[in-house]
Amino acid sequence: MEQEYIYQRIATSIADQIRGGVLKPGDRLPSVRMLCTTYKVSMNTASRIYQELEANGLVEAKPQSGYFVTNLSFVDIPLPEVSKPVLLANNKEPKEIIRKVYSNMGNRSLTLFSYSTLYDDFLPVMKMKKEMLAASRTLVNGGIEYDSVSGNLNLRRVIAQRSITWGGSLMEEDIVTANGSMSAISMCLLALGKPGDTIAIESPCYPGVFQLAIDLGFKVVELPTDPVTGIKVSALREAIDHIDLCLLISNYNTPMGSCMPESHKKEIVALLDQHNIPLIEDDVYGDLYFGNQRPSCCKAYDKTGNVLWCSSVSKTLAPGYRVGWVAPGKYKEQILRQKLLHEISTPGLMQEAVASFMRTGKYDKHLRKLRHGLYENYQKYLNTIITSFPVHTKINRPQGGLSLWIELDQRIDALALYDLAIAEGISIAPGRMFTVQEQFQNCIRLCIGLPWSISVDQKLQRLGELSKQLMK
Amino acid sequence: MEQEYIYQRIATSIADQIRGGVLKPGDRLPSVRMLCTTYKVSMNTASRIYQELEANGLVEAKPQSGYFVTNLSFVDIPLPEVSKPVLLANNKEPKEIIRKVYSNMGNRSLTLFSYSTLYDDFLPVMKMKKEMLAASRTLVNGGIEYDSVSGNLNLRRVIAQRSITWGGSLMEEDIVTANGSMSAISMCLLALGKPGDTIAIESPCYPGVFQLAIDLGFKVVELPTDPVTGIKVSALREAIDHIDLCLLISNYNTPMGSCMPESHKKEIVALLDQHNIPLIEDDVYGDLYFGNQRPSCCKAYDKTGNVLWCSSVSKTLAPGYRVGWVAPGKYKEQILRQKLLHEISTPGLMQEAVASFMRTGKYDKHLRKLRHGLYENYQKYLNTIITSFPVHTKINRPQGGLSLWIELDQRIDALALYDLAIAEGISIAPGRMFTVQEQFQNCIRLCIGLPWSISVDQKLQRLGELSKQLMK
Repeated sequence: MEQEYIYQRIATSIADQIRGGVLKPGDRLPSVRMLCTTYKVSMNTASRIYQELEANGLVEAKPQSGYFVTNLSFVDIPLPEVSKPVLLANNKEPKEIIRKVYSNMGNRSLTLFSYSTLYDDFLPVMKMKKEMLAASRTLVNGGIEYDSVSGNLNLRRVIAQRSITWGGSLMEEDIVTANGSMSAISMCLLALGKPGDTIAIESPCYPGVFQLAIDLGFKVVELPTDPVTGIKVSALREAIDHIDLCLLISNYNTPMGSCMPESHKKEIVALLDQHNIPLIEDDVYGDLYFGNQRPSCCKAYDKTGNVLWCSSVSKTLAPGYRVGWVAPGKYKEQILRQKLLHEISTPGLMQEAVASFMRTGKYDKHLRKLRHGLYENYQKYLNTIITSFPVHTKINRPQGGLSLWIELDQRIDALALYDLAIAEGISIAPGRMFTVQEQFQNCIRLCIGLPWSISVDQKLQRLGELSKQLMK
Repeated sequence: MEQEYIYQRIATSIADQIRGGVLKPGDRLPSVRMLCTTYKVSMNTASRIYQELEANGLVEAKPQSGYFVTNLSFVDIPLPEVSKPVLLANNKEPKEIIRKVYSNMGNRSLTLFSYSTLYDDFLPVMKMKKEMLAASRTLVNGGIEYDSVSGNLNLRRVIAQRSITWGGSLMEEDIVTANGSMSAISMCLLALGKPGDTIAIESPCYPGVFQLAIDLGFKVVELPTDPVTGIKVSALREAIDHIDLCLLISNYNTPMGSCMPESHKKEIVALLDQHNIPLIEDDVYGDLYFGNQRPSCCKAYDKTGNVLWCSSVSKTLAPGYRVGWVAPGKYKEQILRQKLLHEISTPGLMQEAVASFMRTGKYDKHLRKLRHGLYENYQKYLNTIITSFPVHTKINRPQGGLSLWIELDQRIDALALYDLAIAEGISIAPGRMFTVQEQFQNCIRLCIGLPWSISVDQKLQRLGELSKQLMK
């Protein structure tokens, strides 16, 4: 408690210096080590100071060079609004919009800003081919036999080892593998919910989550969400008596790109535990931080096993391999039952290949390059958007992940923009896709998974022009 | 209708000759071609005559040599009883027994008669390693990107082509791939059922099916099932007003090994269609026929798209690859939605490898060898069981598949036998595992997926001795 007080106090004083103009956009800030000496705090506390400032969009870390006062928070582009969903609104699933947008998934004749996935040079195709070949040699009988229900031991072991990067202390037996993160989430919902239950989610939210919940007969409650800090803790607290389950994308969520500060994570874990409401945490973007340190997870604050931490390599390495996992805490037996009933087991070969890629340090090397590339991409995308889009455009400032959340002038109908854009070979995701209420009609999500190119630049400029047309 | 009448009439007259002793055990029967000439019928009709006689256990086909009057039906061992489940009994899931038996899955220090899977030489390990390597070269980007929701096109195409072997006429767009057959079945149940619905299944039944159904909140109705011809059509007809869904393992089901005759398949498809009750058909053992011709599927008689035909390569080629599929008929959109919601997509690489193995004829070559091996295995297992087990033992006579269903003397408690056997390193599946009612207490399932060896022989003999002990 003492330590927490210190890091918050120092972060606030630095924030004040930035807001007061003592520190200016682009100024270099002291290194974490220097912070330790200056304020006589531990490395851990010093790191937390910058995490807090990053989460608030005041500071950005540039790979291999240190922390800087962010430019972006000072350009003339405001952040999107904190969402204001209605607490107990009827669920209106945007089926038709989702169907329309997803019908072009994988259609590479279009410029695909619409899907939260990596393309081309961001994926280590040759390296993973080699890894698959090696895995088919090292795995007993090339993985032709059923894997155990828990999943490949080497993968579970390396995921457990890597949990220290986000403050976890998992053991291999704490993990159950899945066919990607959505399959892990599906097991969680099947295991813990029943028709008629109510699930609290962010607003806006990844549509796969609420579609699955609605399909299973749950009621979906969207809660106010901040583009920087994620779901409003106060809103969750007010809704707490109405909900049976909670699902959050804690780090760099899609579509808003928010990252929950440590203090929010800690508070939410305690709140939900106190009310016996399981927290399903989707951490699929956590490794894609632009700064110098990975954000923590809610699971790091889980003392009772009430958090089910789900993740995968689908957003970082190999979407097509369908390698994901869940650390289900005290719900492990229920999750194993779901896996046995719906899948029996997962393919051992891809799990072995991913495990080996992680164990030998290749994954971390790949991630460093990927994060660097995504950060550059993000800056370039943002610059073109800022210069091309109409006035009154609001843009999020994610500190990681793949999502740009753009709130356009109220007069612009994102569905009309979608139609204009798709006719010119540009696929975008309209805001209405990400909610079961009538909101975000003037919002769009653009993903930065397409590596930068002249064509990407031109298509973004064209999107800006089309938006301007719609304002008239 | 005329043709059907002819094949049934001729089959009955041959059956009468066998039962009357005109044709004796081991006698060779005329070839299909000779039958055509003799009775002036088509090849199709002649084949059906033998299918009918095989299904009734009177005739057996020996690979590459023709049809013979079976010896087995004349040894002093009766068939197990037709099951007599109570129509609307409360579901009592045998959770603890299943947990106990499945806890040893993959434990090769035991002799595993308990699981319906192939071991060792029955699996083409080296060939599939090569196929995986080739697939990672031919597939775009080695399968690192998301596959389409429908699944790998080459796999869907070759499954469609192969549908002629069972009387189907599928097109590639009729098929959706899945992570094995259970995953396909899970999608069907999630898409078509809701809590409170009633599902009709065979009795005994593969436990994964009723566990999944119960977990989803369905009521399970077990129907009387014949060890030769499968579910009683009359029983299904009587129960028809109580059920919302029906799931059948049509060919060589587990644990009973029954294979539904053509006429039953046709009748059941029509009956269920008439009442708008979807039929989920699990055909996972259909390629494992001991005779000369693959049995047909219910799907072959489906004129309205009411049959969801599910299958996989888990029982024939590569359980660990998790490659399965469903031809969902008119329910395709619902199945695609389930796949997208729970899985997004399936791993393209294993699907490509299996597709290539099938397309190049290697799968058929493998199946020929496998069927021959399983048939030999079956005869050897049966001979040892017949000579080692106590009096009053009844055994099924499957014409394909992996399951021996053994009904022991009423005094023998299969759970006690399980405990004695496991203490000696032998794993068996007690009958109570396969039902949600109190029945089959004196039954066990033994699978023939372990290739024959002196050790297998000794363990089977030991099982017989242990059974004898329990009679005292």
